[in-house]
Amino acid sequence: MDMSGNWFIESVYTDLNVMLKVREVFYSGSTAYQKVEVIDSELFGRSLVLDGKTQSTERDEHIYHETLVHPAMLCHPDPKQVFIGGGGEGGTLREVLCHNSVEMATMVDLDSEVVALCRQYLPNHHLGSFDDPRTNLIHEDARAYLQNTPDLYDVIILDLVDPLEGGTAALLYTQEFYALAKARLNSGGVLVTQSGPAGLLSFKECFTTIFNTLGTLFDHIKAVQVHVPAFQTLWGFTIVSDTAFPEVSEDDAEFELARRLSKKLKYLDGVSYSNMHSLLKFQRDGLRTEKRINKDSDPVFMI
Amino acid sequence: MDMSGNWFIESVYTDLNVMLKVREVFYSGSTAYQKVEVIDSELFGRSLVLDGKTQSTERDEHIYHETLVHPAMLCHPDPKQVFIGGGGEGGTLREVLCHNSVEMATMVDLDSEVVALCRQYLPNHHLGSFDDPRTNLIHEDARAYLQNTPDLYDVIILDLVDPLEGGTAALLYTQEFYALAKARLNSGGVLVTQSGPAGLLSFKECFTTIFNTLGTLFDHIKAVQVHVPAFQTLWGFTIVSDTAFPEVSEDDAEFELARRLSKKLKYLDGVSYSNMHSLLKFQRDGLRTEKRINKDSDPVFMI
Amino acid sequence: MDMSGNWFIESVYTDLNVMLKVREVFYSGSTAYQKVEVIDSELFGRSLVLDGKTQSTERDEHIYHETLVHPAMLCHPDPKQVFIGGGGEGGTLREVLCHNSVEMATMVDLDSEVVALCRQYLPNHHLGSFDDPRTNLIHEDARAYLQNTPDLYDVIILDLVDPLEGGTAALLYTQEFYALAKARLNSGGVLVTQSGPAGLLSFKECFTTIFNTLGTLFDHIKAVQVHVPAFQTLWGFTIVSDTAFPEVSEDDAEFELARRLSKKLKYLDGVSYSNMHSLLKFQRDGLRTEKRINKDSDPVFMI
Amino acid sequence: MDMSGNWFIESVYTDLNVMLKVREVFYSGSTAYQKVEVIDSELFGRSLVLDGKTQSTERDEHIYHETLVHPAMLCHPDPKQVFIGGGGEGGTLREVLCHNSVEMATMVDLDSEVVALCRQYLPNHHLGSFDDPRTNLIHEDARAYLQNTPDLYDVIILDLVDPLEGGTAALLYTQEFYALAKARLNSGGVLVTQSGPAGLLSFKECFTTIFNTLGTLFDHIKAVQVHVPAFQTLWGFTIVSDTAFPEVSEDDAEFELARRLSKKLKYLDGVSYSNMHSLLKFQRDGLRTEKRINKDSDPVFMI
Repeated sequence: MDMSGNWFIESVYTDLNVMLKVREVFYSGSTAYQKVEVIDSELFGRSLVLDGKTQSTERDEHIYHETLVHPAMLCHPDPKQVFIGGGGEGGTLREVLCHNSVEMATMVDLDSEVVALCRQYLPNHHLGSFDDPRTNLIHEDARAYLQNTPDLYDVIILDLVDPLEGGTAALLYTQEFYALAKARLNSGGVLVTQSGPAGLLSFKECFTTIFNTLGTLFDHIKAVQVHVPAFQTLWGFTIVSDTAFPEVSEDDAEFELARRLSKKLKYLDGVSYSNMHSLLKFQRDGLRTEKRINKDSDPVFMI
Repeated sequence: MDMSGNWFIESVYTDLNVMLKVREVFYSGSTAYQKVEVIDSELFGRSLVLDGKTQSTERDEHIYHETLVHPAMLCHPDPKQVFIGGGGEGGTLREVLCHNSVEMATMVDLDSEVVALCRQYLPNHHLGSFDDPRTNLIHEDARAYLQNTPDLYDVIILDLVDPLEGGTAALLYTQEFYALAKARLNSGGVLVTQSGPAGLLSFKECFTTIFNTLGTLFDHIKAVQVHVPAFQTLWGFTIVSDTAFPEVSEDDAEFELARRLSKKLKYLDGVSYSNMHSLLKFQRDGLRTEKRINKDSDPVFMI
Repeated sequence: MDMSGNWFIESVYTDLNVMLKVREVFYSGSTAYQKVEVIDSELFGRSLVLDGKTQSTERDEHIYHETLVHPAMLCHPDPKQVFIGGGGEGGTLREVLCHNSVEMATMVDLDSEVVALCRQYLPNHHLGSFDDPRTNLIHEDARAYLQNTPDLYDVIILDLVDPLEGGTAALLYTQEFYALAKARLNSGGVLVTQSGPAGLLSFKECFTTIFNTLGTLFDHIKAVQVHVPAFQTLWGFTIVSDTAFPEVSEDDAEFELARRLSKKLKYLDGVSYSNMHSLLKFQRDGLRTEKRINKDSDPVFMI
Repeated sequence: MDMSGNWFIESVYTDLNVMLKVREVFYSGSTAYQKVEVIDSELFGRSLVLDGKTQSTERDEHIYHETLVHPAMLCHPDPKQVFIGGGGEGGTLREVLCHNSVEMATMVDLDSEVVALCRQYLPNHHLGSFDDPRTNLIHEDARAYLQNTPDLYDVIILDLVDPLEGGTAALLYTQEFYALAKARLNSGGVLVTQSGPAGLLSFKECFTTIFNTLGTLFDHIKAVQVHVPAFQTLWGFTIVSDTAFPEVSEDDAEFELARRLSKKLKYLDGVSYSNMHSLLKFQRDGLRTEKRINKDSDPVFMI
């Protein structure tokens, strides 16, 4: 049985690892902030890995990025100013920029080296979105930036690495940070954050606590979930606002996506929109009964 | 990095394997028909593995078995006679028997040794359902049995191993077999079959061809899909009948499940019912455009 | 790439693991003292694994057992009373009993369950030696036994598991234990102990400290080394006595083995005897410069 | 159990793989001739991998290269003209050049890209030997070169990749090739070739056939063997000449190495010299009884 070669192994749960045959390693090293790998596999194409965790892959990043961006954008009637925290690959930026209403997308990613590697090696992720005149790319800590900027946003999209202990995003999932982000929202503003794994085996790791933490600050909250093959499980996202979310039927979703976007989406349509909003019983039970609140002094960490 | 110990490795896709740390191996050997392992892991509890493929685990088998059984049963107004093809662990039998209407569940599983191992080592799977007086357990090839029996059924549930080349179920997913099964349905009868992986990376392996094959024989067809952690991906099921399916709203589903069942389900409720029926865009596109028909002379095989 | 199935993974060095495809798991569980697995692989045949470490395999155990037993036995002119500490598989016992001079082999292995499993599953290891009338099998801690017995031995053979932290043999490699064992030697008596890995990457783990520790207690000391495929590296053994070792040429070794033994050996002959005594430069340098002494209060542990 | 990261997996035997945690991948790609990886690991340092097989590592390449070069060089009284076939890393060249007698070392390695990668990434392997004025580096197929050159050599050293089916060296281990190489030897000339794994589990793969094949062409033949940690087993080398080998005692070896070399060796001294010449019983039996002869029309291949 000849398995010779390079394999990327990722721990998905305690006691369960995924082994992915690697076709080529484009980059393997460390930036000032994190360990970075850009790998290529027959199965997933080009992928970005930060601190040992797959961030996105050429094959299925559209599922993650479309789900992160569009349901939140549809909660706002006319999003013009959008803030993106993290999002190094440029996939989130790409999805934001295809909204015709967007006038400026301010993307704040701490790690300029990661962004440079993504621009070089992941052209099918960003599709040139870094060169869009509406893009305002800044390399700074998202928390520091939001604390200091006088700007306000219609939609804030948090596309951050998972809250790993000692990782770059450990304090970007706390009540204090969310309060600070909320202060940068225009009236009617919407915030969405990627919220970690949402499958049966790991939905309590951070999905439920992020939801509960955001729920202490905003009047309206909902979660969506989707299966991302590269993450080996369901993935959660949390959307909040102080303004009530619009009622969006499957037909409405189709209509709005067609009206607002300059392209046709690959994953999302009316029924997929419905699917991602139909949370599973264990997810709903988990979100309802969660009591933990992430605080700077006691943040949640992914296992 | 001490990874010493027994690991169960399963190839999920070409080039991607899952490594599961094994706590104990209860059984490892071969029956007259297949390679069998009963293993126990911290993550999944006790699991049945046939020919190297995880069939079900203590931790999440309820997701698979509830999804296989109940949506199909709800398509029939009063299922009394139920046929189960395969289903060695007894989980499908267990779910069938909790329908108050059921008078007899005829389970035909080829491999008496597998069933004996499951009765011994997987008590939390079958929960004693093999001892229910309504159970009629037969060890024979399901195809031969259906060909020879004069009996008719309200619901036929096919809980078979995947169609592996040279495997025991290679000819239990073909047009000829389905025609033969259809002939054993009462008027208004419903057939459901597990239909293999339904996630983005593998939905075309057999899910779409099973759907297309069944579509050539029945007037009404639908598919449902669900994320099964132990299978590392979404999983598909196909339901067919010559009688139109009832319209079932989320509330209807909740009501019917409460009315018909002698227990509360762990996974399935109204919204989860809705979720599993909301197929994703790539799944719908795949089912719609599939042209292959599985025939005895040219059956589909899982990779 | 289908690697599906059970694999035994063993950490050989930090950052290097060996993956062995398992054909069958005969036993997997825990005794009162340790985790035990009896596995079968195409490559190695039946193998005993204790606390995650391969102890011996059907394919190559003769290399280990012949090297442990015979060079030490040849250091004694007429070994009649032999003590074996550990040695659960019965391979050491088997080699001892083929010496015509041996009148009694007292084997003290703590774990009766391991010995019972070996008797059942490893018939090609022990070859019936447990039933030899000269065998005196006792299940007790070897240290306690040697402390309490009034008996004296011509050769003491320590075939113990490696000194793992918290393992059963942690205090069977210390100066105090060796002093106690020395007190049970007849005049002219010889002691040998398996001494752990002796290859370039790990010879300092315990090989050199065991040698140095024994050197504080005995007038004469030598080490031998051999490549054991199942251990993935060279393996060391230390032989000590207060009586000078005989000069044994290659021809002498051949002659003595033929004269003393009731069978022909598979691995050992004159040239192999010479090979195992020709320590490599790094081994000699390591043994010469080692300063650590294993004490009960500060024993060496394998990584 | 967090094993996340890049691992290099190498199949050592059918059913046994070694997993090495990789610290950094310097290069991963393909040249005109083969797949090449230059990786760095905590355990082995920088390593060259060709077609999935580890060629040498910073940590232990000295064992392999000293054993390949010096025993053969000591078989010649005054080696001035040396030919190296293969040897891309420059380690063989380095060892050859430290012989004071050497006037020219002609190294013929097919793959200029591999040599360039080694010069860039493996400075501790070649230690500048490519820049030695006595080095004559040529990129051509070694067989074609030897066929066409009018030059004669005192020692020919074949440091080729293993004979993999379809690999670059499949026809560099055959009787026809060896006849051709023999024709390029000066009177008293010596040829040595790396001869593949020599451990109990794999010594018959190519070690014995290479020995038997060379034995048909030369009057004098001997093999040496050594444990190379990075190869996970013992490794064999075959030395031939039409002139009788000198008798070299341990003391002679020490003396000659000191007299002839411009540096002190790390692995080889008198006793290590003796060890590598003391072949194990199974190796001697295998070499003696081998009947296969590698021919161009039916070459041996490594598994």
